[in-house]
Amino acid sequence: MTILGLEETVVAPLVHAVVEEDMAPTAVAECFARAAWTGIAEPGDRVAGVLVDALGAVDALTAIVERWPVPQLIERLAAQDAEPGVVTELGDAIQRWLPRLRSAPVLIALEQAARLSVRLLTPSDTLWPGGLNDLGAHAPLALWVRGRDTAVASLQHSVALVGARAATGYGEHVTMEASAGLVDRGYTIVSGAAYGIDGMAHRSALASSGQTVAFLAGGVDRFYPAGHDALLTRIVESGAVLSELPCGGQPTKWRFLQRNRLIAAVSGATIVLEAGWRSGSLNTAGHAAALGRPLGAVPGPVTSAASAGCHRLLREFGATCVTSAEEMAELVAFDRLPTPELPFAGLRSDPVVASAARPPEHTRVLDALSTRSARSVDEVGVRAGLAIARVQTVLGLLQLEGEVTERGGGWLKG
Amino acid sequence: MTILGLEETVVAPLVHAVVEEDMAPTAVAECFARAAWTGIAEPGDRVAGVLVDALGAVDALTAIVERWPVPQLIERLAAQDAEPGVVTELGDAIQRWLPRLRSAPVLIALEQAARLSVRLLTPSDTLWPGGLNDLGAHAPLALWVRGRDTAVASLQHSVALVGARAATGYGEHVTMEASAGLVDRGYTIVSGAAYGIDGMAHRSALASSGQTVAFLAGGVDRFYPAGHDALLTRIVESGAVLSELPCGGQPTKWRFLQRNRLIAAVSGATIVLEAGWRSGSLNTAGHAAALGRPLGAVPGPVTSAASAGCHRLLREFGATCVTSAEEMAELVAFDRLPTPELPFAGLRSDPVVASAARPPEHTRVLDALSTRSARSVDEVGVRAGLAIARVQTVLGLLQLEGEVTERGGGWLKG
Repeated sequence: MTILGLEETVVAPLVHAVVEEDMAPTAVAECFARAAWTGIAEPGDRVAGVLVDALGAVDALTAIVERWPVPQLIERLAAQDAEPGVVTELGDAIQRWLPRLRSAPVLIALEQAARLSVRLLTPSDTLWPGGLNDLGAHAPLALWVRGRDTAVASLQHSVALVGARAATGYGEHVTMEASAGLVDRGYTIVSGAAYGIDGMAHRSALASSGQTVAFLAGGVDRFYPAGHDALLTRIVESGAVLSELPCGGQPTKWRFLQRNRLIAAVSGATIVLEAGWRSGSLNTAGHAAALGRPLGAVPGPVTSAASAGCHRLLREFGATCVTSAEEMAELVAFDRLPTPELPFAGLRSDPVVASAARPPEHTRVLDALSTRSARSVDEVGVRAGLAIARVQTVLGLLQLEGEVTERGGGWLKG
Repeated sequence: MTILGLEETVVAPLVHAVVEEDMAPTAVAECFARAAWTGIAEPGDRVAGVLVDALGAVDALTAIVERWPVPQLIERLAAQDAEPGVVTELGDAIQRWLPRLRSAPVLIALEQAARLSVRLLTPSDTLWPGGLNDLGAHAPLALWVRGRDTAVASLQHSVALVGARAATGYGEHVTMEASAGLVDRGYTIVSGAAYGIDGMAHRSALASSGQTVAFLAGGVDRFYPAGHDALLTRIVESGAVLSELPCGGQPTKWRFLQRNRLIAAVSGATIVLEAGWRSGSLNTAGHAAALGRPLGAVPGPVTSAASAGCHRLLREFGATCVTSAEEMAELVAFDRLPTPELPFAGLRSDPVVASAARPPEHTRVLDALSTRSARSVDEVGVRAGLAIARVQTVLGLLQLEGEVTERGGGWLKG
């Protein structure tokens, strides 16, 4: 049995280094294939989610590598009662995965993970956060974890505290009190490790000797933002840092937006503590609302632009007004609302979630470009996780909008 | 025809002085009787409301003065399809009205009204604010108006801006902006002329050359609070000051709570701009919500106790978060929600409306007592608008609670 052209004897030691339990050879192959998938499909890739769910990670990968005919794949999907909607997207999806079907990046990511004691979590793992299953086909294919298992297990009793990077003294003060008060009540603090509110939420939890978990938009081997290197190192020591991207994965705008869905899904409630009108934390709030998770917003002075996003959540998105850790804890204690049937159906057109009017593929192509060194269409395809033909179309449209420039056979942002 | 023992020739000139239009003799008698009722029944007296509605003010008054047998009254009420619930309360109600059935106070109030150009408005008047009809049997029996008719007419396009007396600089600033912004959009500003938020709402409307209307808890001849004498004088000059109490009527705690229902009922929406956890303005908010009027609350820093009441309205009472005059105007523009069938049924047990756990009659008896000069049971009955027997019972209970003291055949508060 080979996966991505690698023999099991090569794969097994690598997998055992990142998965602690004894496992059967088929389980080893499944873990390796899931690890590979985290580097092939972009976060939130629904078609990959459906395919891996229906066929298993190994067969799904083999099908793509061996170029199974699409009708045969469709037959397998139908036999598993897979969501029929993805059938029409399958051809495009395979095109965008093909450029990334290489074994080298998987090996490098696994070696780097082993070096840093990063662990791979898959949905069959007992530590797998149950809340992620509410994401359906948008659930991550695996999670890369750096830190303590106890912190990951404590996610079942957690609150997400999120907010703007451009926080004020007021926002930081309220976040400090909220985080400490929730830790005192036994909750784990989940956030995104960004500057401002996120950072304060983690710091205050650590200062109160509480559990805290950070979700990153890139690999857990390179901390982002760099200024939070010391903070993230402390979180790894007593809590956990998680990502669905393999080691080496770069944080991109697209991945930040997708990372936010994980924060919302694993937490019992999401609280926005301070956020301007267009803060990215409103995206996390939108995911929480779409998943039927309780959503709280802390009000602030109406004269402060830094609270305008919180007030928007209260006015337009039915967020609950929360003013203390006690009220936030009450919110988590609520029974979970029923999960909407298609959690993401409404989100796509939701202005809070789609933080820009730009289509997702345009965001991903722009993420993949540099302002300084021109990149080829092939390279952009690999970086963006998009088919070559799509990249060409999107580059053409972005060129018309003046957002990209062609130079020397390659493409530049700006 | 006599009313309260007065011949029509005595009554007519007094009534003509406070009602500008030409009127038939029956209308004169009706106005006089309504004026009398405003001094006999306490604000919000549901039994008086039902009786006056069913029999007309003159017959209702005559029935009490001439001591019609209760069964005869019940028959008349049934013939008019009056709310059957009041039947059991009729005996008690008559007992509480009897001590006030005197012509002298009515004559004094009318003379004082004429002297100050105070006008009497009754429900048949074209200027009668339509919103008051949503109060049903709790609607005022008449209104005493000091100021301009145009201001009263403009109530059909109005917003109530209310809040705590103990306002902060933040609350006053936000109120100033809100009032000016709503005036710019053509709205009349309604408030209660109290210190703090109310005063700022009126002042800012005047400064913007807008219409503003104040509702008082006592007669419009003596301005309360005294420190707002100059402000209320200015409101009379360009706006209007209204009360359901006749001239000479003292503001009491009970009357403040009842006055709040008028503010809520005449306004297209009620906005609470700054309010502590137990602010009286939450009572106005409770009335607005019970009447199905849009209710807005302005958030503030969660670290400010002066905004805790606003946050409570957002959390517990479904108030809309409003942060600017524009958002407040949007709230008024909403179609009115259907009025609940029994608007006040829920209010009684509503913690926001029943601002103290104390039963209403206890509040009224305490209102009627002085801390310095002892008052007889009869005098307390007249002041509180309660039957002698009820006063004796309530005084006994309050004595057990240590809230009143008997001295020299009279009663003292404390």
